[in-house]
Amino acid sequence: MSAIFGISQSFMKKYAIIVAGGSGTRMGSPIPKQYLEIGNKPILMHSLEKFFKTDSSIRLILVIPEVDFDFWRALCEKFDFTVPHQLVKGGKSRFQSVRNGLAQIEKTDGLVAIHDGVRPFVKPEVIMESFKTAEAEGSAIAVVALKDSIRKLTDDGKSFFQERQYFRLVQTPQTFQVQKIKKAFEVTELHHFTDDATVYEHQGWQVSLIAGNVENIKITTPEDMEYGNYLLGKNPM
Amino acid sequence: MSAIFGISQSFMKKYAIIVAGGSGTRMGSPIPKQYLEIGNKPILMHSLEKFFKTDSSIRLILVIPEVDFDFWRALCEKFDFTVPHQLVKGGKSRFQSVRNGLAQIEKTDGLVAIHDGVRPFVKPEVIMESFKTAEAEGSAIAVVALKDSIRKLTDDGKSFFQERQYFRLVQTPQTFQVQKIKKAFEVTELHHFTDDATVYEHQGWQVSLIAGNVENIKITTPEDMEYGNYLLGKNPM
Repeated sequence: MSAIFGISQSFMKKYAIIVAGGSGTRMGSPIPKQYLEIGNKPILMHSLEKFFKTDSSIRLILVIPEVDFDFWRALCEKFDFTVPHQLVKGGKSRFQSVRNGLAQIEKTDGLVAIHDGVRPFVKPEVIMESFKTAEAEGSAIAVVALKDSIRKLTDDGKSFFQERQYFRLVQTPQTFQVQKIKKAFEVTELHHFTDDATVYEHQGWQVSLIAGNVENIKITTPEDMEYGNYLLGKNPM
Repeated sequence: MSAIFGISQSFMKKYAIIVAGGSGTRMGSPIPKQYLEIGNKPILMHSLEKFFKTDSSIRLILVIPEVDFDFWRALCEKFDFTVPHQLVKGGKSRFQSVRNGLAQIEKTDGLVAIHDGVRPFVKPEVIMESFKTAEAEGSAIAVVALKDSIRKLTDDGKSFFQERQYFRLVQTPQTFQVQKIKKAFEVTELHHFTDDATVYEHQGWQVSLIAGNVENIKITTPEDMEYGNYLLGKNPM
C-alpha cells in the first residue's frame, strides 16, 4: 500500500505524533479507552498500524502518560506488536502532550501528522493527502461535512438556525510543516487551543482543510467501542 | 411501554407525521432508502412502529409520494404490517409534504410530532419528552451535542474555530402544539426552511430544545444502512 500511495509523494521526512491521554494515574479507574481492545488488539495499536501500513517510512512518536509506559510495553509484548515507535511522556493537557512529541523532532524541514490515538479508522488515503497538502500549503486538517441541521445556542438560552454548509466537523490527522507547527507551539497555552489547528492559526496563519473519512470517529463511549468492533468485523485492519 | 410513559402525560390528542420523501417517480432509479429493509422490514415500518409502541394512541400520518402508494400497500401486505396509519401524498419539498400532513389534522388543540421516516432509531423516551415539552412550551426539537470540534467556513475560502459547546446537531422528532405549527405553515415556503423548527421560528417564536439520542441517525448512505443493521442486531426493535 505504501508503494501505491508513495509514488506521488516527495522525499520530505514524515513524522506522526499519536496522542493518547494526558497525565494522571488510573488508580481505581477503568482502563483508558486507548488500551482497550477492538477486533484483536488495543485501539492504539490499530492507530499506529494505520500510519505504518500507509507508509513505513513515517517515524512514529507515541505520546502517553509516563505512568503507563510499563503497561504499554507489556501490552506490546502480549500482542506481539512490532511496529517501530518512540515512546514520549504526555503532559497535563493535549497541548502539552503534543509539544512533548514535537520536541522529539530535531530537524525542521519535515512534515508531521498529529493524530488522536483513539481514531483507529482513519483511511490511508486521508493520511497521504494530509502530508501532500501540508507540504504544499503548510497545514492540512481533516474535516467532514454535517449530515444534520445545526443550531447555535446563545448565552440567554435561545438558539438559532445555522446554514450547515458553512460548517465542518474537525477530525485528525492535522498535519503540518514541522518548522511552522514547532514555532506555533512555542506560545503559552490558551483556553481555546482545543486542537492543533487552533494553535497553528494563533500565529495568524490560515489552516487548509482536506476531506476526512466519516467513519474516522473518536472512540470515547462504550457505544463507540461496539461500533468500532462492528467496523473491524466488516473491514479487518 | 405506553403504560409506563403514559402516566405523566396529559390527555391532549397526539399526532405524528412521518415524512418520507417528496414527489417524483423512481423510474429507473434505485428504491428510496425508506423502503429498504434493515433487520427484518423496511426502515419506514420501524419508524412508524417506534411511535406506535411508545404510545398506541398517537394518530400516525405517513407522508410519501402518491406514486408510491400502491407499492407501500403491497409492502404492508408482504410484511404483514398492521400498525394503523393514514397515507397522505407528499409535496415537492419537505415543507410541502409536512403541510399536506398537517392539513389532515382537523382539531387544533393537540400536539404533533414531525419525524423523518428514515430515522428509525429514535428512543421512546425522546418521543415522550418531546410531547411533554411541546405541551408546556409550544415546541420541542430533539438535538444532540457535537463530539468533534467544529469550524465555520467563510465565502472567501477561510475557516474559523468555533466553540463547540454553543452548537447542537438537529434531529427529529420536532414536536409542536398543533395550533401553532399549523399557523406557522400557512406562510410561503422560504429557502431556509430546512426543517420544521425554522418554519416555527419564522413566526418570531423561539423553539425549545430537548436531548435526542445519538444513535437516532438519518439513514442516507449505504454505510448508514450497515450501521442500522448493526444497531438492530444489537437491540432488535
